[in-house]
Amino acid sequence: MNLNLSNNHQQLLQTAIRALHERTFFSQYPENPTPDVYGENADKEGRDMYKAHLNQPFSELLQEDPAAWVGQEESPYEQQPLGITYPFFAPDTLVTRAEEAFHTWRKVKPADRAAILVETLERVKNRFFEIAYATMHTTGQAYMMSFQASGPHAADRALEAIAAGLEEQTRFPEETQWEKPMGKYNLKLNKQWKAVPKGVALVIGCATFPTWNTVPGMYASLVTGNPVIVKPHPKAVLPIAIVVAEVQRVLQENGLNPNICQLAVDANDHLITKELAENPLVKLIDYTGGTEFGNYVESLKGKTVFTEKTGVNSIILDSVEDLDKVAQNLAFSVSLYSGQMCTAPQNFFVPESGVKVGGEVVAYDEVVRKIADAVTSLVNNPKAGPHILGAIQNPATTARVKEAASIKGKEVLSTCDLSNPVFANARTCTPVIYEVAASEPESYSRELFGPIVLIIKTKDTNESIAIAKEMAQKYGAISCGAYTTDPEVKEKIMDEMSLAGTPVSFNLTGGIFVNQNAGFSDFHVTGGNPAGNASFTNPEFVIKRFTWVGFREPVAG
Amino acid sequence: MNLNLSNNHQQLLQTAIRALHERTFFSQYPENPTPDVYGENADKEGRDMYKAHLNQPFSELLQEDPAAWVGQEESPYEQQPLGITYPFFAPDTLVTRAEEAFHTWRKVKPADRAAILVETLERVKNRFFEIAYATMHTTGQAYMMSFQASGPHAADRALEAIAAGLEEQTRFPEETQWEKPMGKYNLKLNKQWKAVPKGVALVIGCATFPTWNTVPGMYASLVTGNPVIVKPHPKAVLPIAIVVAEVQRVLQENGLNPNICQLAVDANDHLITKELAENPLVKLIDYTGGTEFGNYVESLKGKTVFTEKTGVNSIILDSVEDLDKVAQNLAFSVSLYSGQMCTAPQNFFVPESGVKVGGEVVAYDEVVRKIADAVTSLVNNPKAGPHILGAIQNPATTARVKEAASIKGKEVLSTCDLSNPVFANARTCTPVIYEVAASEPESYSRELFGPIVLIIKTKDTNESIAIAKEMAQKYGAISCGAYTTDPEVKEKIMDEMSLAGTPVSFNLTGGIFVNQNAGFSDFHVTGGNPAGNASFTNPEFVIKRFTWVGFREPVAG
Repeated sequence: MNLNLSNNHQQLLQTAIRALHERTFFSQYPENPTPDVYGENADKEGRDMYKAHLNQPFSELLQEDPAAWVGQEESPYEQQPLGITYPFFAPDTLVTRAEEAFHTWRKVKPADRAAILVETLERVKNRFFEIAYATMHTTGQAYMMSFQASGPHAADRALEAIAAGLEEQTRFPEETQWEKPMGKYNLKLNKQWKAVPKGVALVIGCATFPTWNTVPGMYASLVTGNPVIVKPHPKAVLPIAIVVAEVQRVLQENGLNPNICQLAVDANDHLITKELAENPLVKLIDYTGGTEFGNYVESLKGKTVFTEKTGVNSIILDSVEDLDKVAQNLAFSVSLYSGQMCTAPQNFFVPESGVKVGGEVVAYDEVVRKIADAVTSLVNNPKAGPHILGAIQNPATTARVKEAASIKGKEVLSTCDLSNPVFANARTCTPVIYEVAASEPESYSRELFGPIVLIIKTKDTNESIAIAKEMAQKYGAISCGAYTTDPEVKEKIMDEMSLAGTPVSFNLTGGIFVNQNAGFSDFHVTGGNPAGNASFTNPEFVIKRFTWVGFREPVAG
Repeated sequence: MNLNLSNNHQQLLQTAIRALHERTFFSQYPENPTPDVYGENADKEGRDMYKAHLNQPFSELLQEDPAAWVGQEESPYEQQPLGITYPFFAPDTLVTRAEEAFHTWRKVKPADRAAILVETLERVKNRFFEIAYATMHTTGQAYMMSFQASGPHAADRALEAIAAGLEEQTRFPEETQWEKPMGKYNLKLNKQWKAVPKGVALVIGCATFPTWNTVPGMYASLVTGNPVIVKPHPKAVLPIAIVVAEVQRVLQENGLNPNICQLAVDANDHLITKELAENPLVKLIDYTGGTEFGNYVESLKGKTVFTEKTGVNSIILDSVEDLDKVAQNLAFSVSLYSGQMCTAPQNFFVPESGVKVGGEVVAYDEVVRKIADAVTSLVNNPKAGPHILGAIQNPATTARVKEAASIKGKEVLSTCDLSNPVFANARTCTPVIYEVAASEPESYSRELFGPIVLIIKTKDTNESIAIAKEMAQKYGAISCGAYTTDPEVKEKIMDEMSLAGTPVSFNLTGGIFVNQNAGFSDFHVTGGNPAGNASFTNPEFVIKRFTWVGFREPVAG
């Protein structure tokens, strides 16, 4: 087919495939929202574009004949409805249209699909600032995270999925001649192989990272030839609606059915996720969100399912070079987006004998105090606090932080009020810290989503490791931070946490945090523990979306 | 580690990895049991070695302290017990020993594991003839198939799994430096990745292909660092027991725990498969066998499962060049090992208007007659029949063939007696053929394992394709044969059957049959329909056996 694209994108795709294997730094989309990169007026224009959506129907989608217009987003910064409505379609309509679109999309060659999808990211790039404001006012993320996570970082993750999907679909020859020596003659067969897509894909988004957690599965399914129904969380639709609109536009420009990628929204009185997920024509499901619904999705028969659920992330403190730097680093990690990240640490394991710092030992109580002080100092810094914490997406998170006071343990930091200098009505909440005993697992054996830190006093680092591993194996974990200057302890932590399928960041200080995962380098969620069965973007994340089917025939003559 | 091997095998492994991608002919183990290849006395020595096992305990395994000695094999050729006993262990003992062995095996580098496993195949090669006789007298396969399928073809499939496993575990760097430009400075992290094996693996074998269907999963789990418990069908233990013994010997020679690969047998009064499968430490299960038990295995929570169950394989007859050659080819396919192959065709779709042959049309009845005549002529040829049909593994199969007489349809060929010239007491059964109407799906909508052929009269080829596709989607299919000289019909069959995840062989005549699948070229079972979720050996077959886990730390200084 003749593609109508700004560039053929094949060179970028080959670069991206190489980057997947080198796993050194690679990024296609600049993460700094600065004028020198994105243009003098990009920020203002993006904000204006965001504002123009408010109290209007979102009319960019190319999906015809909606049954209704619905919307229920509200800004965590303003605690006011956004008033944006989206076209509503019955689940059967969405699936029927997807199935119809399937039969054109699956016949497009993988390399052409990949190029078309890269073009969609180039278009989305022009809307990064608009998406950033949309993300702020749905998720409560601060401006910088909203820009980076929903814009360039998400686009890099999408590109990663496209590249991996293209590579896997082209790892075997389209055709070859097989010639087997049979003694007196050779048996000759012409053989062909097709990477056959599985069918209609559903991508279920979450309320905190509406594009970052959605685009990997969405682009992975698309590049492998499956039509996608994107079902965002009803409270965070706009950021991904903009992405879907751009995808539909590029599809249409290339003579393809825009329903290859559809947006599906819940009506207030009609939640459609289960109906979609249970439809027998839906073969692939990507899900990000809570464990209970995730387990339901994983239990569905006849589906290939990719989940990112929740986990209990640990910090293991054994020995450090500079305890103040460590405390500052950890304070940032627990404060960033008020702990509303799947990679945010929750359980801090500190030996009762304290932490070795150089040649000295700093007592347990002093370690706890330093961490608490670092948090207090960070959140009370008016130049930093509000820009790191952002706002709380869901009132249930605020309630959970308040309930944390009933945890069996000792209060170190309770919720303090924080006012946002720009948004007087923002829903905010700063980290709370409780000390609990290692012997009270019911206190720390579950994810407490939000800015809640538990410091667990252990007998020694061996017990810290054993509990962190057990938590990850039983309840899942997406990240682990460990601090040790002892090579043997380090080796042990690597070995034990690897068996719990948990990546470990060692001795982070300064400008890099355990919460952060870089596209093209860090695998995100490994599939090795109950936190989820999928990993952005390892080969498994794309190859399960299609089936190799072979054809053969004797060579004529 | 210093390996104690006949060769370092790395060059062979690289050749095998290349072959995986070229998918042209590649075979490491010669399939012809001829003296020029395997030596003048190889056959006789192999038969003697087989005979020496009879009525003796199988004492080669390096598994200590069995709880009992048990055995229940009998020869389908002699209908007599073999009298061989094997060491029995309680499931908990097996799993505990496997878990213990896990922690040494997982620390061996993938390349070393692969080399050790190739060495085991070199040892097994010396026992191909012994394994051939063991296979004959457990499965009922004829001599040639017993040799080829259980010996060289199985070893090629094992090598394929080793090569694929090695490739996938080395696709990402063990370590790298990640350096991100931050404007005024560069953020530098040392990163490492480990392919972490999932844990104890269980491989459940079947009674008809005791090594061919077992070694792919067994070697795939081993090469990826998982200890394996091999649980054969109680009626077909000896062929794979020999393989396991050779694996254990090579492990021991290399200072490794032989329990990295254990044999697990059922006692007459204690079937252990479910206990093993349900043990929470068992993380990986490979299964070959019936659908019902396969569905049970697939339903187990917290396991990664690979199945090959059963399917309803179709032949679509549209147009041919030489109907006699087609009939002969199909007669061979249904007679080979008396239809006891997962790839044997069952449902033959013939249009009521007949089949185009060159410029003519041969009437439906004439097509049916030609197929029946070809079968009759083949089975009655004393030089060919017994050597193709072999014996019937399970008396239930004979019973099923007899019950086929009650199918709603018209008898074309009913069971004829066949005497084997060498084994007077052999349990034999030749193919039966019934005509059924397309409008009677209950007659053909299930696998009738064994030499049972249904000829289904359809309105036209479009209906033939539609039903073949529907059968594959609903009940699974592992093979499909199609005969057409019309390029458009061919394209349609490819497209429709690809959506049913079913490989298609077109226009086979002469010495190549729809039942046959070549290692390193044909994917066996695609995972794209209910016949099974695994495919020998696509990348998915190995990557789901381990988890990528990353580690990172700031660069010092």
